[in-house]
Amino acid sequence: MPELMKRRSKKSGLPPGTLVHIGEKKTGETKVTVIDYSETEFREQQFDAIEQCFLFKDTPSVTWINVDGLHNVEYIQKLGDCYGFHPLVLEDILNTDQRPKTEDFGEYLYIVLKMLHDGESAETVTEQISLILGRNFVVSFQEGIEGDVFNPIRERLRTAKGRIRGMGADYLAYSLIDAIVDNYFVVLEKMGERIEDLEEELVQTPLAGTLQELYHLKREMIFLRKAVWPLREVINSLGRAESPLISESTRIYLRDIYDHTIQVIDAIETSRDMLTGMLDIYLSSMSNRMNEVMKFLTIIGTIFIPLTFIAGVYGMNFEHMPELKWRWGYFGLWGVMAGIAVFMLLYFKRKRWL
Amino acid sequence: MPELMKRRSKKSGLPPGTLVHIGEKKTGETKVTVIDYSETEFREQQFDAIEQCFLFKDTPSVTWINVDGLHNVEYIQKLGDCYGFHPLVLEDILNTDQRPKTEDFGEYLYIVLKMLHDGESAETVTEQISLILGRNFVVSFQEGIEGDVFNPIRERLRTAKGRIRGMGADYLAYSLIDAIVDNYFVVLEKMGERIEDLEEELVQTPLAGTLQELYHLKREMIFLRKAVWPLREVINSLGRAESPLISESTRIYLRDIYDHTIQVIDAIETSRDMLTGMLDIYLSSMSNRMNEVMKFLTIIGTIFIPLTFIAGVYGMNFEHMPELKWRWGYFGLWGVMAGIAVFMLLYFKRKRWL
Amino acid sequence: MPELMKRRSKKSGLPPGTLVHIGEKKTGETKVTVIDYSETEFREQQFDAIEQCFLFKDTPSVTWINVDGLHNVEYIQKLGDCYGFHPLVLEDILNTDQRPKTEDFGEYLYIVLKMLHDGESAETVTEQISLILGRNFVVSFQEGIEGDVFNPIRERLRTAKGRIRGMGADYLAYSLIDAIVDNYFVVLEKMGERIEDLEEELVQTPLAGTLQELYHLKREMIFLRKAVWPLREVINSLGRAESPLISESTRIYLRDIYDHTIQVIDAIETSRDMLTGMLDIYLSSMSNRMNEVMKFLTIIGTIFIPLTFIAGVYGMNFEHMPELKWRWGYFGLWGVMAGIAVFMLLYFKRKRWL
Amino acid sequence: MPELMKRRSKKSGLPPGTLVHIGEKKTGETKVTVIDYSETEFREQQFDAIEQCFLFKDTPSVTWINVDGLHNVEYIQKLGDCYGFHPLVLEDILNTDQRPKTEDFGEYLYIVLKMLHDGESAETVTEQISLILGRNFVVSFQEGIEGDVFNPIRERLRTAKGRIRGMGADYLAYSLIDAIVDNYFVVLEKMGERIEDLEEELVQTPLAGTLQELYHLKREMIFLRKAVWPLREVINSLGRAESPLISESTRIYLRDIYDHTIQVIDAIETSRDMLTGMLDIYLSSMSNRMNEVMKFLTIIGTIFIPLTFIAGVYGMNFEHMPELKWRWGYFGLWGVMAGIAVFMLLYFKRKRWL
Amino acid sequence: MPELMKRRSKKSGLPPGTLVHIGEKKTGETKVTVIDYSETEFREQQFDAIEQCFLFKDTPSVTWINVDGLHNVEYIQKLGDCYGFHPLVLEDILNTDQRPKTEDFGEYLYIVLKMLHDGESAETVTEQISLILGRNFVVSFQEGIEGDVFNPIRERLRTAKGRIRGMGADYLAYSLIDAIVDNYFVVLEKMGERIEDLEEELVQTPLAGTLQELYHLKREMIFLRKAVWPLREVINSLGRAESPLISESTRIYLRDIYDHTIQVIDAIETSRDMLTGMLDIYLSSMSNRMNEVMKFLTIIGTIFIPLTFIAGVYGMNFEHMPELKWRWGYFGLWGVMAGIAVFMLLYFKRKRWL
Repeated sequence: MPELMKRRSKKSGLPPGTLVHIGEKKTGETKVTVIDYSETEFREQQFDAIEQCFLFKDTPSVTWINVDGLHNVEYIQKLGDCYGFHPLVLEDILNTDQRPKTEDFGEYLYIVLKMLHDGESAETVTEQISLILGRNFVVSFQEGIEGDVFNPIRERLRTAKGRIRGMGADYLAYSLIDAIVDNYFVVLEKMGERIEDLEEELVQTPLAGTLQELYHLKREMIFLRKAVWPLREVINSLGRAESPLISESTRIYLRDIYDHTIQVIDAIETSRDMLTGMLDIYLSSMSNRMNEVMKFLTIIGTIFIPLTFIAGVYGMNFEHMPELKWRWGYFGLWGVMAGIAVFMLLYFKRKRWL
Repeated sequence: MPELMKRRSKKSGLPPGTLVHIGEKKTGETKVTVIDYSETEFREQQFDAIEQCFLFKDTPSVTWINVDGLHNVEYIQKLGDCYGFHPLVLEDILNTDQRPKTEDFGEYLYIVLKMLHDGESAETVTEQISLILGRNFVVSFQEGIEGDVFNPIRERLRTAKGRIRGMGADYLAYSLIDAIVDNYFVVLEKMGERIEDLEEELVQTPLAGTLQELYHLKREMIFLRKAVWPLREVINSLGRAESPLISESTRIYLRDIYDHTIQVIDAIETSRDMLTGMLDIYLSSMSNRMNEVMKFLTIIGTIFIPLTFIAGVYGMNFEHMPELKWRWGYFGLWGVMAGIAVFMLLYFKRKRWL
Repeated sequence: MPELMKRRSKKSGLPPGTLVHIGEKKTGETKVTVIDYSETEFREQQFDAIEQCFLFKDTPSVTWINVDGLHNVEYIQKLGDCYGFHPLVLEDILNTDQRPKTEDFGEYLYIVLKMLHDGESAETVTEQISLILGRNFVVSFQEGIEGDVFNPIRERLRTAKGRIRGMGADYLAYSLIDAIVDNYFVVLEKMGERIEDLEEELVQTPLAGTLQELYHLKREMIFLRKAVWPLREVINSLGRAESPLISESTRIYLRDIYDHTIQVIDAIETSRDMLTGMLDIYLSSMSNRMNEVMKFLTIIGTIFIPLTFIAGVYGMNFEHMPELKWRWGYFGLWGVMAGIAVFMLLYFKRKRWL
Repeated sequence: MPELMKRRSKKSGLPPGTLVHIGEKKTGETKVTVIDYSETEFREQQFDAIEQCFLFKDTPSVTWINVDGLHNVEYIQKLGDCYGFHPLVLEDILNTDQRPKTEDFGEYLYIVLKMLHDGESAETVTEQISLILGRNFVVSFQEGIEGDVFNPIRERLRTAKGRIRGMGADYLAYSLIDAIVDNYFVVLEKMGERIEDLEEELVQTPLAGTLQELYHLKREMIFLRKAVWPLREVINSLGRAESPLISESTRIYLRDIYDHTIQVIDAIETSRDMLTGMLDIYLSSMSNRMNEVMKFLTIIGTIFIPLTFIAGVYGMNFEHMPELKWRWGYFGLWGVMAGIAVFMLLYFKRKRWL
Repeated sequence: MPELMKRRSKKSGLPPGTLVHIGEKKTGETKVTVIDYSETEFREQQFDAIEQCFLFKDTPSVTWINVDGLHNVEYIQKLGDCYGFHPLVLEDILNTDQRPKTEDFGEYLYIVLKMLHDGESAETVTEQISLILGRNFVVSFQEGIEGDVFNPIRERLRTAKGRIRGMGADYLAYSLIDAIVDNYFVVLEKMGERIEDLEEELVQTPLAGTLQELYHLKREMIFLRKAVWPLREVINSLGRAESPLISESTRIYLRDIYDHTIQVIDAIETSRDMLTGMLDIYLSSMSNRMNEVMKFLTIIGTIFIPLTFIAGVYGMNFEHMPELKWRWGYFGLWGVMAGIAVFMLLYFKRKRWL
């Protein structure tokens, strides 16, 4: 289950800008990969020491530095020093409890996003992705969960497919964001399937376990919403930012992601509405079924109660009870009792209680 | 039942602008119809090859190209290349999971709308309609569901009825949007009838099935709302767009559609409020009825319980039970028991429990 | 009960500006009354033919044309042609499913309002009133329901009471709107009385019928709200309109109606809140009462169950049951049973279950 | 209980500006008190005839005219004529169903507020206070309920305590508003105490009466909210008004009242949230308690039902029932029955049903 | 439990600007500590008499005066006179029922915040912190609850750790606010743990006490929200204030706190949503469990009722009851009764009622 709050308390009391990794360690080693490309050239390298990637800093080609794993605080400190990132940016990168946001520092734009992963269990795991977009570089930081939605982009860069190699760093940043948002649809589709399965189950045979499942879906929706909702504002302000780092042609693409984000939010809201409706229906179905059972049982009881009373009457030991001596008394009484039972059954039937 | 999410995942990882048809294939063949008209002339043709309609591109008369069926991706690609539409526009046309929106590309306006169809079952089907309005052309894309609300407009164009032939492409686009919005009223009326039927049923004889029907109506309302709500913004921004493609006289007509849209939204909100109210009433009616039944049954039980006890007492085998020997003991006891039953009935009556 | 949707579907497919009367026909004949007045003069006439009132068009005095009944489409067409109203305005006048709104056409202002009538039954009926305010004329259109709140204004015009005769057409329009809004208070007061009656009933003796009444009131509130809510915006934009048709002194009066509208909306919202609170209270009262009854009945049952068991024991036919031969066995057992009953009653009393 | 709607209907049909007192008559006689002061001088007089206070109109000193009781329409008419108030202002003063508001008439500002009084019963009574602030005068109108929060201000004026005597009419108006808002805290504190008492009662021993009390508190909150909510806007627009009647130094004080108003609104919203939470808890507590009782009773019944069955079996009159002849049959059966009862008790205990 | 309203009524009727301490006295003695520092120098002193700290007023170094304990009204009066604070500011400092806010008085900024403390019991205690930021001084006022989150800042000042000694008074004020906001995360984490514990309990074994705990958490959330929500606006307006007291470099840090505040608000909203969801689940779980018990008990009853009836029948004393004489009648009847019981058990099993 997603945690309600990351353990941030260890930072309390430290001066601002102190670098502490907040969040679970999700990968063994910090991996640094550099892709450097222009329309005609392409280089891809993985480094052990962070310093090696500083060589790419002043090349005119577009450089994409991808850092996988955040617990190696020293690496990130050095990278920040080299590129001149503000200490608060480095602090935010390490704190995986960030809300999606974008900040314009003039020289570079800092963007925080949430990637969604379907865990091996049914639950969704969120991973924080930080992007720093400079004039001719993009630095991306991942927590290092397995399964990377950036791979298709790497592939496109390698094979020079699409227009990506001919465009600047802003188009690369756009492509990364687009990959993340596209991935939301995949997660939401699985979610949608679970909701539709549950809906079918609900209409046919509501079980006690349905309630737990409904609760879990609702809970996950709360967390999804928290991850996606601020994205709207992020993409919107990116698209309208006055920063010269984003070219006019890329803005049209950002407007497109904005539409996608709205669609994701719409789908989440619709799901929430439906889950709320389903809870109401579940509760009334359960209560209806329960009531039917109790009514049935009570009716059975009610039919036998007067009969038992009659039997009790003729079990009394009074000396003067003329009926006891009648020749057909016993059999007649059976008839009377059957009559009473039939009458009550018919009465309940007519009242539509049975 | 309307799907919660279209299967978009097949697009994940592809570069932006890749044309993939997302959504069900709703018609067999892609049909392309061209209507070319001016105040005095009128031509209507259906083509097999998309290339044939490029001839109309540079005529001064207004050209309306209608594409019915979206699965023929190649056609749409060629059309886009010929008219110079942005790749993202073509991508959006093919993705039938769009939200209603409008975008101004300078040379042309791109508008996405949702058409509502009453399916053969009670359920409403939505169809995505894309419109592209240029200086002297309108291109419309439909998914190709049977039953087309654009037919009356074609008829008006053919017979030169109303002012439509004398006006520009913007008035044609307005007419198409108007036809779609007018159609919402038809769908909502049917919906309204179903709600009113249900309401009557509810007040008279609530059944267990009423709950399912309520849930379905609520669910459809959620989807209707999702289709109609963004329309408000779309029409509003069309009416206030600075684009020279829309003339001043057409803006007054757009304001009129805007009012209609608000009316549709109002009706949907009112229906939602009523459905919520009806659910509350249904639940309390059911619970009241159930309680009445249980109370009745319990009262019957309660009346017989002391009587059965008394009969049990005189069924005991003690040697010294003087009552058993009394001459009128048995008949007297019947009287006592009748008295107890009558007293309890009166007591319950007075307490208004019966 | 107010209809959820007017039957608008007959318009679907017709070109915009086609005049079709949508809504019930509420009066037999269309009546046209003209009042023409200045500070010193006053004329009032009722016409059979609409053409006769065109004579007043160019007089410098203020002319008030009142059209009662909307099904005579031809009249309205002619009137519109004579005064040069936009076809969409005429269409809106005939469509009684409009939302309150105001539109500025430069030469004239078009205003739609809803009049509320207490029907003979408890239900509220809404009537659409359209006003067109020109430089020196007001044209008003009513659906023609009996009982007209404009009569006091006619009386004031005839008797030159108040300042109305000395002011322009804008003050006349204001007076008409004021009469409509004032009438809302009358309707809301009756509504308020029904709510207060219901509240008293609720606190004292909630009945099953209370639920139906609550539902009806809630439903009517939904419709009232729909009629009144947009009025706020209408009056506000009238008061701030840049139109020269409304003089500065009349604007102060419009601000006054604006306050009244806010009060009406406040009262509606308060009523809604109260009705929601009352539903909660009703449901819990009913459930509490029900539970009390069931508890009482179950307690009676519970007291007799062990006694019946004891009687059953001494009704057994074992040969060796020493108690049966005891001299005071029978009477002793009565004592024991009475003791058990008293003990249980005291126990339940102490537990506060009785 | 506060009325939902004041009886305004008697005004319907009258021309605007007609003076009719709407609301209950709350005092016997209309009292007019005039306080006239400057930094050095102070005069206080009570008048029988309203005309006498016109003498103060043109003095340079600050004049505070306080009118207690609104049913004397003639007085208010004369006062209005003398000071040149707009007829709509006079109408609003007399209509005690106003919403708090402020209006700028250039020469003077008109302010409507609601004073809260704790009635002798637990209920809160609202009184409408109208203030008119001119260049060197303040006219205040009260409905005349006993207990006046303006007394401390009179005292401060008499004794020249604080800075009030040295400041202008705007500071006097501010002081009056401040006194009213401060009084809200007193009323809310009492309310808060009632809520906290109820909360304690709820946690310890929820009674049926708790529900009524909850409903009454909720109802009062609705009315309080209606009285206080618009105040926020009133004070805010006063503080930012461009009127030269309010000096810069007084604006700081108005900002202070604005904060107080927000605190009052906060407290009301918090109370509403808590009352809603309390209703939920009350309902579930009641239902839990009820269920516990029913479960206990049903368990008692369930234990005796099989025992009664066994006793019934050995009460049968078959000729061949070997157990009946066993020497220890009867006592053995007692043992068996005790064993069954103990077993069932243990079973229910283990299932945690007891 | 946090009080709903502070006892403010004692201020009612006093002139504005009168200094009265509203709120509990939370510490024995008022402590005044002064820290005076520049990049190179550092002095820290605790004073008995407030006058002693006036010496620091005109030094060029940054002076931080911290006042611990608010009941010594005289101290605060003197401090205010010396530094020239507005009387309303002093009034607000003493009134611990303030809402977080910021006010710009030109010469200085006044900021009110709420500090959260975990009391020894599970409950959260709020403490009001007032900050006054001048050109080269910060005055902070605390209520004096034990446990001070400002200690790490003092330590940093003493040891010249981080950049704090080299920056101005605005950075000091920022650091104080940052310490307060960081502390919110600590409190929220504990809260989050309690919620997660409760959630686990809920899923496994819901108890009656769970309801109380849920209610307490919800109640605390209401109060937390009240304390934190306005903070958003405070920090936002600080960051965008035009005041020259806040330097450009500090604004970036304020933007960082703003993000933290949004995260805190997000966490609170998420917790509220989850608590609401948990209440729904708790109620339905309890009701499901209860229903299961009642169903089980009723089924046991229902099985024995017909058996008891049969036993009653053969306990009747009719002279002619042939079955009684049958040789195997008694044993046969046992068989019949066992058969009926087994049949009913199977029937209930198949219906899934058991």
